[in-house]
Amino acid sequence: MLPPTRFVSLPACARPAERSVTHPAGFRASGIVAGLKRSGRRDMGILVSDQPCVSAVTFTSNAAAAAPVRLTRDHCACERLRAVVVNSGNANVITGEQGMRDALRMRELAADGLGLPLDEVAVCSTGVMGVPLPMETIEPGVLKAAEKLSPAHGDDFAVAIRTTDRTAKHGALTIELEGGEVRMGIAAKGAGMISPNMATMLCFVTTDAIISAGDWQAMLSSAVANSFNRITVDGQESTNDTVIAFANGASGVQASSPADLESLSRSLEFALKSCAIALVADGEGSTKTVRLIVDGAQDHARAEAIARAVADSPLVKAAFYGGDPNGGRVLQSVGQVIGRSSPDGLIADVAFGGLTVVRGGEMEPLSDGQQTRLAGIMAEAEIDLSVKLAGGAGTATLFFSDLTHRYVTINAEYST
Amino acid sequence: MLPPTRFVSLPACARPAERSVTHPAGFRASGIVAGLKRSGRRDMGILVSDQPCVSAVTFTSNAAAAAPVRLTRDHCACERLRAVVVNSGNANVITGEQGMRDALRMRELAADGLGLPLDEVAVCSTGVMGVPLPMETIEPGVLKAAEKLSPAHGDDFAVAIRTTDRTAKHGALTIELEGGEVRMGIAAKGAGMISPNMATMLCFVTTDAIISAGDWQAMLSSAVANSFNRITVDGQESTNDTVIAFANGASGVQASSPADLESLSRSLEFALKSCAIALVADGEGSTKTVRLIVDGAQDHARAEAIARAVADSPLVKAAFYGGDPNGGRVLQSVGQVIGRSSPDGLIADVAFGGLTVVRGGEMEPLSDGQQTRLAGIMAEAEIDLSVKLAGGAGTATLFFSDLTHRYVTINAEYST
Repeated sequence: MLPPTRFVSLPACARPAERSVTHPAGFRASGIVAGLKRSGRRDMGILVSDQPCVSAVTFTSNAAAAAPVRLTRDHCACERLRAVVVNSGNANVITGEQGMRDALRMRELAADGLGLPLDEVAVCSTGVMGVPLPMETIEPGVLKAAEKLSPAHGDDFAVAIRTTDRTAKHGALTIELEGGEVRMGIAAKGAGMISPNMATMLCFVTTDAIISAGDWQAMLSSAVANSFNRITVDGQESTNDTVIAFANGASGVQASSPADLESLSRSLEFALKSCAIALVADGEGSTKTVRLIVDGAQDHARAEAIARAVADSPLVKAAFYGGDPNGGRVLQSVGQVIGRSSPDGLIADVAFGGLTVVRGGEMEPLSDGQQTRLAGIMAEAEIDLSVKLAGGAGTATLFFSDLTHRYVTINAEYST
Repeated sequence: MLPPTRFVSLPACARPAERSVTHPAGFRASGIVAGLKRSGRRDMGILVSDQPCVSAVTFTSNAAAAAPVRLTRDHCACERLRAVVVNSGNANVITGEQGMRDALRMRELAADGLGLPLDEVAVCSTGVMGVPLPMETIEPGVLKAAEKLSPAHGDDFAVAIRTTDRTAKHGALTIELEGGEVRMGIAAKGAGMISPNMATMLCFVTTDAIISAGDWQAMLSSAVANSFNRITVDGQESTNDTVIAFANGASGVQASSPADLESLSRSLEFALKSCAIALVADGEGSTKTVRLIVDGAQDHARAEAIARAVADSPLVKAAFYGGDPNGGRVLQSVGQVIGRSSPDGLIADVAFGGLTVVRGGEMEPLSDGQQTRLAGIMAEAEIDLSVKLAGGAGTATLFFSDLTHRYVTINAEYST
């Protein structure tokens, strides 16, 4: 089951299903213990389609992209990937030429085990930074993962890609198209945007619909823009972020009519959003998930800048941790973006859970009843925050987590 | 005495002196208990020159600027201010038209008490946001502060402007010019950039040199650019930040030759930098002060963006708290700024205290001796961090603090 959140609704064309990435026909997966994690948990997995696929991808835009990202992005056939091999426990980043050699070797072993051409096999890594991959553990791990492939092992794969994730972020849907049913599966991970012992957002999507590579990539890019690109835990973009979506057509059902493409697209966006919001809820140290909607900004770019400033403000984030509906801190972070372009001061409304605490740039006096309602809103796990400006039609939505003692503990009290 | 730091050196033309803002001739000050702070500490002060002044100012660029900022900025003669009245404990921000009326009343009372025209009296406030000024406490406080003015009360003034500051940030210099000695005093406050119970950077400078308003403003703008605009605690620009510098000419010594202007300018920059760095060291929850130097960026703007990204990264800041020389996190934050414009990856060196941990984008293997040296560097209170790129001549310097449990405690566990 996809992680529940009140911030998204299941499209009418889709219904939840068991399993995750192997719910669609013609996919097998595995998740095994290679021995990379000191905890002894599953740390390597393979996901493969039994028949040729069209594939769609998005990668981190970080200049310090990890070796597996550069390998997949620059040296694979990203529109017809058929498999991915993933390890957790080590991100293979800041590892120089050795890192690229190790990623190539990982791919080679997986392609051999699967009987696939090299350029149809993607490689992903997540975990500690700046430490070479322990190839003596990786190599037998890849072979073992190839042996364990089964349509029954989708959940093992979903577990194997996790690092410090405390919650599962996977699920599946059955989707009604005009020509019949197709299936979709998803497995994602990510606890902080990045961190030395953990790191990174990874997401793998499968479907057995028949769809063109162009439609599939357009659909994925749009769904990522509205999900993973709309969240922030700490404003830090990982060096390893990767999303790969496979469509193998094994259902025999074509998605090409505008209505079918719409159904598939809405289902994909629902799946990605559910996982993205779960990722915020499980962000390092997170105790709250906030949906911030900025509107009335001069234009969308300005709305986006304002939303990022609010969502990444450590003062706003710490106030949510403390359960304080602190309109002043929200206004201050908005004002920092708007700056001198608004010499007459900042005319804005700020509301928590629909209850306005700042109106026209001034604190709103609240009744005792409203204060009580506000305390209830701030105690929820999912909170709505709204910033309304009077500058134009620009709007932006972001999901973010709070800043907690545990975030500091996780990110200060590890050992590298 | 100005706060000591190894990051700046006293100019040869200057020597430390006792007192703070009243070290220069012809200034009086006061710092009294008006009753705004529950702690019962000093919370109101006046600083005034006995004779006309030239003055220079800089203000926050936040669109949500507080009433006292807008009053002073828009309705005072900022090139000939002669006095300032300051309260701590309440920032008079997000207080709407009432806030402006209260700031005007504060100015009126001070001007009356001092016998000065309204437009020569500046108003500053710092403290809790979104609460109207308690005028029944403010009004007698201003009158009391006017009564207590004395050349001996500079330190009281410096104390009265503090909020949660744990350390003093004031001092004085005697400066040798060609025509004789002049004096300079400074008092600053600021623990976080902003926060509901505390807030804001304020700084007041005095000198008895004779200097033109144009030279004085140029000198202040440059010194602020190299000091207060080069620090970050949490990346949050306050709604109340104000710097006011008074030059009353009471020494009878003119500063107009290039050599004298240079001496005065270097002394001013030294005083402001000493206070700015002390402000980082005393930043909310701060346990470390880091001097970050970025060079080799494409241009200065890019260097500045990279420096801000590193200095405001919660992961980098938490690593410093944990004593971890985490080159990976530094590289990740640099890479986030550079993004796709560098498709070949990120070629950068990262060094802590002069010891290189990342070279050419790759982790540098360190000997046991180097590891020990690095642990010693990370245990210091003041740490140098260097990021060298191979992109051009762009350079930037920033001072920043670490992210600690206490920062979260201060900013989550208050009551508004």
